Amino acid sequence: MSSSSIGQRFVFTSFGESHGKCIGATVDGCPAGLEIGERDIQTMLDLRKPGQSIITTQRKEDDKVEILSGTYKGHTTGAPITMIIWNKDQHSKDYDNLTLKPRPGHSDYPAFVKYNGFNDIRGGGRFSGRLTATFVMAGAIARKLLSKTLGIETFSYTCQVGSVKMKEHATMKMKNSVYSNEVRCPDPKIASKMRETILAARRRGDSIGGIVESLTVNLPVGLGEPIFGSLESDLSKALFSIPAVKGVEFGSGFHGSTLHGSENNDEFLIKNGKIQTKTNNAGGILGGISTGMPIVLRVAFKPASSIAKKQQTIDLHTKKSVSLVVQGRHDPCVVPRAPPVVDSLVSVVLADHAIRAGFIPPVIR
Amino acid sequence: MSSSSIGQRFVFTSFGESHGKCIGATVDGCPAGLEIGERDIQTMLDLRKPGQSIITTQRKEDDKVEILSGTYKGHTTGAPITMIIWNKDQHSKDYDNLTLKPRPGHSDYPAFVKYNGFNDIRGGGRFSGRLTATFVMAGAIARKLLSKTLGIETFSYTCQVGSVKMKEHATMKMKNSVYSNEVRCPDPKIASKMRETILAARRRGDSIGGIVESLTVNLPVGLGEPIFGSLESDLSKALFSIPAVKGVEFGSGFHGSTLHGSENNDEFLIKNGKIQTKTNNAGGILGGISTGMPIVLRVAFKPASSIAKKQQTIDLHTKKSVSLVVQGRHDPCVVPRAPPVVDSLVSVVLADHAIRAGFIPPVIR
Amino acid sequence: MSSSSIGQRFVFTSFGESHGKCIGATVDGCPAGLEIGERDIQTMLDLRKPGQSIITTQRKEDDKVEILSGTYKGHTTGAPITMIIWNKDQHSKDYDNLTLKPRPGHSDYPAFVKYNGFNDIRGGGRFSGRLTATFVMAGAIARKLLSKTLGIETFSYTCQVGSVKMKEHATMKMKNSVYSNEVRCPDPKIASKMRETILAARRRGDSIGGIVESLTVNLPVGLGEPIFGSLESDLSKALFSIPAVKGVEFGSGFHGSTLHGSENNDEFLIKNGKIQTKTNNAGGILGGISTGMPIVLRVAFKPASSIAKKQQTIDLHTKKSVSLVVQGRHDPCVVPRAPPVVDSLVSVVLADHAIRAGFIPPVIR
Amino acid sequence: MSSSSIGQRFVFTSFGESHGKCIGATVDGCPAGLEIGERDIQTMLDLRKPGQSIITTQRKEDDKVEILSGTYKGHTTGAPITMIIWNKDQHSKDYDNLTLKPRPGHSDYPAFVKYNGFNDIRGGGRFSGRLTATFVMAGAIARKLLSKTLGIETFSYTCQVGSVKMKEHATMKMKNSVYSNEVRCPDPKIASKMRETILAARRRGDSIGGIVESLTVNLPVGLGEPIFGSLESDLSKALFSIPAVKGVEFGSGFHGSTLHGSENNDEFLIKNGKIQTKTNNAGGILGGISTGMPIVLRVAFKPASSIAKKQQTIDLHTKKSVSLVVQGRHDPCVVPRAPPVVDSLVSVVLADHAIRAGFIPPVIR
Repeated sequence: MSSSSIGQRFVFTSFGESHGKCIGATVDGCPAGLEIGERDIQTMLDLRKPGQSIITTQRKEDDKVEILSGTYKGHTTGAPITMIIWNKDQHSKDYDNLTLKPRPGHSDYPAFVKYNGFNDIRGGGRFSGRLTATFVMAGAIARKLLSKTLGIETFSYTCQVGSVKMKEHATMKMKNSVYSNEVRCPDPKIASKMRETILAARRRGDSIGGIVESLTVNLPVGLGEPIFGSLESDLSKALFSIPAVKGVEFGSGFHGSTLHGSENNDEFLIKNGKIQTKTNNAGGILGGISTGMPIVLRVAFKPASSIAKKQQTIDLHTKKSVSLVVQGRHDPCVVPRAPPVVDSLVSVVLADHAIRAGFIPPVIR
Repeated sequence: MSSSSIGQRFVFTSFGESHGKCIGATVDGCPAGLEIGERDIQTMLDLRKPGQSIITTQRKEDDKVEILSGTYKGHTTGAPITMIIWNKDQHSKDYDNLTLKPRPGHSDYPAFVKYNGFNDIRGGGRFSGRLTATFVMAGAIARKLLSKTLGIETFSYTCQVGSVKMKEHATMKMKNSVYSNEVRCPDPKIASKMRETILAARRRGDSIGGIVESLTVNLPVGLGEPIFGSLESDLSKALFSIPAVKGVEFGSGFHGSTLHGSENNDEFLIKNGKIQTKTNNAGGILGGISTGMPIVLRVAFKPASSIAKKQQTIDLHTKKSVSLVVQGRHDPCVVPRAPPVVDSLVSVVLADHAIRAGFIPPVIR
Repeated sequence: MSSSSIGQRFVFTSFGESHGKCIGATVDGCPAGLEIGERDIQTMLDLRKPGQSIITTQRKEDDKVEILSGTYKGHTTGAPITMIIWNKDQHSKDYDNLTLKPRPGHSDYPAFVKYNGFNDIRGGGRFSGRLTATFVMAGAIARKLLSKTLGIETFSYTCQVGSVKMKEHATMKMKNSVYSNEVRCPDPKIASKMRETILAARRRGDSIGGIVESLTVNLPVGLGEPIFGSLESDLSKALFSIPAVKGVEFGSGFHGSTLHGSENNDEFLIKNGKIQTKTNNAGGILGGISTGMPIVLRVAFKPASSIAKKQQTIDLHTKKSVSLVVQGRHDPCVVPRAPPVVDSLVSVVLADHAIRAGFIPPVIR
Repeated sequence: MSSSSIGQRFVFTSFGESHGKCIGATVDGCPAGLEIGERDIQTMLDLRKPGQSIITTQRKEDDKVEILSGTYKGHTTGAPITMIIWNKDQHSKDYDNLTLKPRPGHSDYPAFVKYNGFNDIRGGGRFSGRLTATFVMAGAIARKLLSKTLGIETFSYTCQVGSVKMKEHATMKMKNSVYSNEVRCPDPKIASKMRETILAARRRGDSIGGIVESLTVNLPVGLGEPIFGSLESDLSKALFSIPAVKGVEFGSGFHGSTLHGSENNDEFLIKNGKIQTKTNNAGGILGGISTGMPIVLRVAFKPASSIAKKQQTIDLHTKKSVSLVVQGRHDPCVVPRAPPVVDSLVSVVLADHAIRAGFIPPVIR
């Protein structure tokens, strides 16, 4: 299987480069009969668009999606759906000196060695965060599929920036307030502090990391397959494909490893006539299978590697130490643009598993 | 692809159930010509064997591996290597009442719904931690392959139990002291405190969680493939298949998300004539590709779900709330048995990627 | 994906060697709840057993199947089903001189080069026709699954041996007479001539080729996926894995390439209230998708390569021409043993596609 | 894995519809450093272009390929290579009455049922022969890769049309004369008779079938993997994805099944200092592995289903029998356009296997 692809029945392939002609996504295995159009995808793409505020990169992109195949009369046909965005606003000159002076924290060095210099380094090429727009294209389809057929809804938000964090999990009620501020945090007070933290980093030519939390509701019991097809396995595989992600946890996660079983186990009870758990430290997944409780996961983003501060690196040609100041327009914090990306990958994985588990049929009638 | 399989070129399939006839592993794609025998696998299996001390389950298993296929005259042949362990010491009666009274924190409930009661529930069936012995069988082969061809070595250890944690990363020097104590922590003082914590939990009929850290050295630059074949993606997919794992992080991980780019970026320098980084917050992986620095990752284990304390659950037949005391012999803390399992999965993933990247040829000459 | 595996949802992996400890099959993805036992598999295995008559090899094998995993209380559990047959009656000495003197028509030479001599050459190792018993193990499960859930039935028979051939296709009525004679041809007169042809070849220390035809009925419309998941693609991939197969055709096949469209097209009509075609030159498949008409395919087997006649080959050590007489007990014609093998692979592929197309659910209730 | 994809390391995905916006191909896994440009692909595409002569469809297509990703400075980068052809000359009206009146011999009926009418039926949609242009895009890359790295060359030609056939196999010398005539037969006299046969069919509003033979030389020993990764398995899987293909055979193929082992076995000898076989009835493949001898295979094409003659079908709405005359411009014989398509798929499969077997490295230096 291609390393640019993910999924078994709902298969998403990502192609394109940051400063090439286009970036694109192909989704194969989406059931026929789903009503979908460019507008559905554009709406979700717009949520991750750069240049929306002073806390993200000033690079402006239209990012207009174009569906090339796989739909007919406004519905999916069962054929592969290929979508592209033509690249426009590239400043490739900014990257001209990077080949031989690898940027700390970037893929420049290992990529140069791996591809012997043949990789497209403009704008980071395949390693650019821009490629996450292809995740969103595929995710928009997955999301609509899950919503229309099973009522599954997923929403992600910024729960931490640097040391500023939300004290509690968000609730479904907060869903609509995520996009009411530019950091994508549903708590407006915390959002304000996060914004300060990002601006402070920016002023110093620095960057700052953070955490995105994702919540998915209305899952049926039974998605996920032991052993290597566990929901945690497939979700983490997808999420670690986002550049800058260095940690993924489910439910009580790393904190849970400090607890006792009697504290961490979720007791079963009947609520509203349904079997549920009193707490949800499992994050909605037991034995790799969905329990019907909300899936809760957190994704740790390292601070963006591109900073305006002077750093030490090696000139690969002379093998001498040199200093480097990374040029170009960059996000001081990538986290505020990440929630739609996380939503997308979660949806792609769940759509695949919902088809595999027989919850979504090959044709939507 | 089967959900019981992982890998593209070095493909590992796990089969068997906790209390069935046997548990087994098939490895396909291992290069021909690797010297391997049952002893190589047994040695590694013995490191995770239960019943070794008072802090793990008292269930005694011989766990003698038998190679059924794929070797000839003491070497791999290029054919699939199937290995099994015959199950012996099962106490299936202990689990008789579990079908209809799902244990909190276990897969009982979602598995029952998913398989409509057809799954083998004895000893947890497919969901049992016992299946991790199959990971070790495959891992022993992967480890030897990596060691013989590339000199790659991986070692894991317990770095946290409950709130007791090591202050610093282990170094390669500590490698040999990992197995000198029963908690598998290379720092003997911390090990002693961890042991206390586990015994305290045990006395209360409770369990406790913890964290395993893994270190891999001597990697060439260039393992891993963007986008969905990133090392982080494939390592996390493998690691989340271990029952009880709820979090995985690389390098500075979750802590890194609180940092600034200027703190977290690893500057390049020349050391011993080789390009290295000053720090290793990336955990040896940039852009999903190995940098040549040690791969550092941490795996969070929740406290074992099986505890002797009374818990509330639902009788699936009557749909009424009932209380439950889990019978059987269980680990108060699974972490001390986890390091060889983590080593194994890391090795399996790296062997696959080393073959994919052309570092290991189809035949070892 | 492992080269020893086939299928996407119903995944069959074959392992073992002709003269190793055992041969085995793992089926992953079989829906839970299918009633299955060793007897179901043994019954089908017995149909391909060698030593049944004077026209096949005199090698006697018990070939008793043992299910190692994946069933519980007589039903499938949704977990991988591993089955093995312990090898017994090997005469490995017969093959001692083969390593360096490759047999004409055998895999000896390319396998020796590919694996640098590490492959298990005893009895042909992985390349032995004996491995087709693993196809039958998996096929027996697939067949029962298809029969129980959809009423699909497949049957194959010898339609040609050397130049002796049936004049017409077999009909479903003939199904029961296939196994009434040792050549597996439903026409007793033709069967008798085929037997003569095989015995004549045998007397001369020679072998003879032949053709197996396969008929599958009761398929729903809609199995198969364009483009590379066409039924013809997946069936041929499976069938060409049988040693000695050198040709596969569907419906009018090679003969159809001499016809005009007006002769070869199958016109649609209503029969018994169902849409059918007047003729079935398409062999039940249009555009790679099942039409509901019987799937008709033919598989060409070359004459067995192992013959008692003296042949020329090369001593790989001296690089000199030498003559060779292949020792051991061999089938003068493999075709009579092939029908259950063809049935098995057809069933495995159709089971996979029936699951993929949503015709068989993850659990049989 | 997507059903629109083929290959494990050199992965080709086909997308697009006959009368949609475009048709396209994505190749992932092509080694970095291969010099490639649109001209390389265009040259091969032009060989299958319709409208070249009176014996093929009069539909005119420019079929200009555009590379969207995966190359940089004229070389492959290791990233997925996406290529498209914008569709132009569609006459979609011609197909308006097809939905409810399925054409005999076409995918209309099973596709309608499978997709519940949601599939794009214009011009055959996904089932159109036009999609074979995407095979050629991928094939052009594979061909250049094989040629540059290993000197492997493949060439295909029309060896039979209706009952007119070449008496002998083509030789490498004839390679250049294949495209000197419009039927793509290297024997000019036979070519002339084939042309007559096609024109005669055309005059009657009918079509005619034929056979393409493919020859590949300079293969190393050792491509192909037992059991389901045999060269025959993977080549046939690819070739049966060509619409209209109903048979595939290797070496002596179906004819070989009438022979004795002593006739069909290829004896080994030393020629030009290399181990070769005296004859090549195996078609260059033993045990699924390349022997170093030329790969010889034949592909049977049924007569094109679209004919101008009146045929009987069923109105899917009224369930009544109706007569149908297929409108539109069609090939009276698809065979003359098939050789570059066969070449392409053979090259795609061999490129994949050459990478898997370690004969082509991840980077071409």
